[in-house]
Amino acid sequence: MVEAAVLGAGAWGTALAKVLADAGSDVRLWARRGELADEINDTHRNTSYLGDTELPKTIRATTDAAEALDGACTVLLAVPAQTLRANLQQWATLIAGDATMVSLAKGIELDTLMRMSQVVVQVTGADPARVAVLTGPNLASEIAEEQPAATVVACNDSGRAVALQRALSTGYFRPYTNSDVIGAEVGGACKNVIALACGMASGVGLGENTAAAIITRGLAEIMRLGIALGAKPATLAGLAGVGDLVATCTSPYSRNRSFGERLGKGGTMDSALQAAGGHVAEGVASCQSVLALAASYDVEMPLTDAVARVCHKGLSVDEAVALLLGRSTKPE
Amino acid sequence: MVEAAVLGAGAWGTALAKVLADAGSDVRLWARRGELADEINDTHRNTSYLGDTELPKTIRATTDAAEALDGACTVLLAVPAQTLRANLQQWATLIAGDATMVSLAKGIELDTLMRMSQVVVQVTGADPARVAVLTGPNLASEIAEEQPAATVVACNDSGRAVALQRALSTGYFRPYTNSDVIGAEVGGACKNVIALACGMASGVGLGENTAAAIITRGLAEIMRLGIALGAKPATLAGLAGVGDLVATCTSPYSRNRSFGERLGKGGTMDSALQAAGGHVAEGVASCQSVLALAASYDVEMPLTDAVARVCHKGLSVDEAVALLLGRSTKPE
Repeated sequence: MVEAAVLGAGAWGTALAKVLADAGSDVRLWARRGELADEINDTHRNTSYLGDTELPKTIRATTDAAEALDGACTVLLAVPAQTLRANLQQWATLIAGDATMVSLAKGIELDTLMRMSQVVVQVTGADPARVAVLTGPNLASEIAEEQPAATVVACNDSGRAVALQRALSTGYFRPYTNSDVIGAEVGGACKNVIALACGMASGVGLGENTAAAIITRGLAEIMRLGIALGAKPATLAGLAGVGDLVATCTSPYSRNRSFGERLGKGGTMDSALQAAGGHVAEGVASCQSVLALAASYDVEMPLTDAVARVCHKGLSVDEAVALLLGRSTKPE
Repeated sequence: MVEAAVLGAGAWGTALAKVLADAGSDVRLWARRGELADEINDTHRNTSYLGDTELPKTIRATTDAAEALDGACTVLLAVPAQTLRANLQQWATLIAGDATMVSLAKGIELDTLMRMSQVVVQVTGADPARVAVLTGPNLASEIAEEQPAATVVACNDSGRAVALQRALSTGYFRPYTNSDVIGAEVGGACKNVIALACGMASGVGLGENTAAAIITRGLAEIMRLGIALGAKPATLAGLAGVGDLVATCTSPYSRNRSFGERLGKGGTMDSALQAAGGHVAEGVASCQSVLALAASYDVEMPLTDAVARVCHKGLSVDEAVALLLGRSTKPE
């Protein structure tokens, strides 16, 4: 019986706690709020995040990080990207010295422009071989419903990657191992910006050809950034890149796509924000950190740049489209 | 004024004749039927294929291939894949000795298992450097409406590729050059099979995660085949691979996707065929030629194989899903 801890009881943390438990682990799930931990322990449900899904009884929730982490050899970090550092600073000393830490957050840290695995290494002082990344086209609600999905577990240490793969393999969830941590992180950090662009194009009435071109050229600029950072192109052609990008750009449930669509229909940033119930789409912030990271490596990202100009510099969506089409044609 | 001939006045041939004319060429468009040629010349429309789209007056239609080809330095071959050989046998002697021949057909020739550019070389005896391929996520109707789209023109001879790029560049149509003819052809030949699989998954009620996994794992097997045939991975990560695959797998207009969806909902091949007005989805035939080609290079294509078993060997869609999920997990 593998002991696993999941830190963060939102939709994604809870869904992966279920996967781990279904695959045979004893799981401790850390929740910030006591009522949420009580609900999970008493009713085996997390109704605010996963509706009616029944959770395995081998998941035990707690608000005490020390209790959650005690004896855990696998630790899933399921908190938002921009809060990972602060949370981890409180947890670092509680994590067992040989535990594998798995980042589930997708993003580039603002200010430092670090990837999440870099934040983990920096805060915990751990050997990078102990830090893994789980990423892919994975809507939490569908995983909770046990719909078939594939994901990537990336770790420098292939032994740990295979151990994670085993700990997360169920009839409905297929993890593929990969040694390319950088590649696994870049796709997830960049995809929301491209989804905003897809939404904008759809909002101004453009069709399937334009969407496919945006996704493909978006992938090309994500690959350029990834390669500059040391990623393998094959990783970005896989689940962590193409897979996650396609799901985010085409899903009607994508918040970033919907946000872009409202802008494309002529909405202002303020009105799009209001329509989204005050939730800023993640790509609106991350287009800036991605661009800053790209600039520091001399990588051109014209789509990301166009999105940033629309979101932050008052460029209209029509002007952005004209700008992109006006670039000189070149080899692919 | 570049003289261009387009052989085939269906939706795609006519849309590209418009692109060539909009980009400044004098275009001769060969149509099999006299009424169609007359309509194009008299009304500057091709209502059966492109509705109300007004065609440039610099397009002249003819049923006489010799007239169409006289003096043409660029020849677009816009007939269906399985009819290309027979048509080309009639045209070969009429094509100027230094003309660039551009294949627009997507497919693998049944029986010979040849790519379209190989058929062109074999039938005309031309130097492969004179044969180009145009491919990408390009719905003809959207091109005719001048919606922004990107495409690939691939040719061994970079000078010809650049000349084609210029001849086809308009404000709404962006061709990217590529020297990888094989890569450009493999994606288009395989994508319809993967779209059938996506439709099947959607038909049995599976969601976004499954669709993204199918597209990504589909791309992985297309890449394996492409690399075995000599293609560059980057081509398949581009418009000819990812782009065309995403468009075909996610578009509600995709005939292959819809056909698969009917099978997934429990329809038989016969009932799906009836619902499609008697039109067999292209992937139903091509899954067999793609599999045969893959087998001759010892390439595993589990998704294509599952589709072939559903279409031709009576496997149920549910059994196919179970089979795919039952494969042992491995590195990506």
